[in-house]
Amino acid sequence: MQRICVDMDEVMADTLAEHLRRYNQAFDEAITPEDLAGKGLWQYTPVERQQQLRAFIDAEDFFEDLPLIAGAQDVLRSLSARFEIFIASQAMVVPNSLGPKYRWLQRHFSFIPPSHYVFCGDKSILLADYLIDDQPRNLRQFKGQGLLFTAPHNLPETEFVRVNSWPEVAAYFAAVAS
Amino acid sequence: MQRICVDMDEVMADTLAEHLRRYNQAFDEAITPEDLAGKGLWQYTPVERQQQLRAFIDAEDFFEDLPLIAGAQDVLRSLSARFEIFIASQAMVVPNSLGPKYRWLQRHFSFIPPSHYVFCGDKSILLADYLIDDQPRNLRQFKGQGLLFTAPHNLPETEFVRVNSWPEVAAYFAAVAS
Repeated sequence: MQRICVDMDEVMADTLAEHLRRYNQAFDEAITPEDLAGKGLWQYTPVERQQQLRAFIDAEDFFEDLPLIAGAQDVLRSLSARFEIFIASQAMVVPNSLGPKYRWLQRHFSFIPPSHYVFCGDKSILLADYLIDDQPRNLRQFKGQGLLFTAPHNLPETEFVRVNSWPEVAAYFAAVAS
Repeated sequence: MQRICVDMDEVMADTLAEHLRRYNQAFDEAITPEDLAGKGLWQYTPVERQQQLRAFIDAEDFFEDLPLIAGAQDVLRSLSARFEIFIASQAMVVPNSLGPKYRWLQRHFSFIPPSHYVFCGDKSILLADYLIDDQPRNLRQFKGQGLLFTAPHNLPETEFVRVNSWPEVAAYFAAVAS
């Protein structure tokens, strides 16, 4: 059985939506994901707000209740019949996210056992056939086949096989032997 | 550069010492590591105490201040010049350990970057040349060369290359190309 690793932030969980919600509320702005085409919120944010931008994601409750990316649950449930599914999250950059991420996965993806969660940093450590990730850097480190999951910040990226949505992920793997 | 993964509990951190300390205190016993030759504390403990045994490690503070296994710091610091060192801990079985384990590593092994921490379950996910681990089950899952780090519970095990101490780990890798 082939093995698929799946990134969490901006692939399974809509981290950007929550980050924008807190940003817009704090600074009385109305930035949308469309405003961020080709750049991360980090590049978009003025220097004097960077510290606060980081404080949002360091907050104990930031990762507790993130909205789901549409289709993630259904497609992963279906893929888990044909593939070994592992979650691979770069959680070490935000240590406060470790507990909340564990609880979020249990709540929304109870069909994936905790033994298949991997909280890591450098994704070259993953021994898997596929990695679905929104970060080009992670896909460059990964030794298997990478799939770039579309997010506003990675729109200009042309280096990888791209999947724009969970239905596109389903279509990609429908054509692949498991 | 070859890559070595290192388990935490009973390899870098003396988890058993802390578990025995709490057990002996709670039940007014004087069990030593020597009493546990060939079995884990789990097999040793009467059924009516199993729930409490689990509660010890689920406590928020259990993993915060574990003693170091002798030699772990010096040998890993030295090996990190010749090998890529990753920490690979089966932290998902005790979710409360995630934060404490992160902090413990930062405090005692500051020369290993957090991007090289891996909190996982099934160690077949690790892409590495070596794994130093006290659990035969983890070494069976791992795809590279396993080294069994001696702990009381694994004394009867004969299936793996055994290292009895950190000086023996140093000696093993002194004879290996990096």
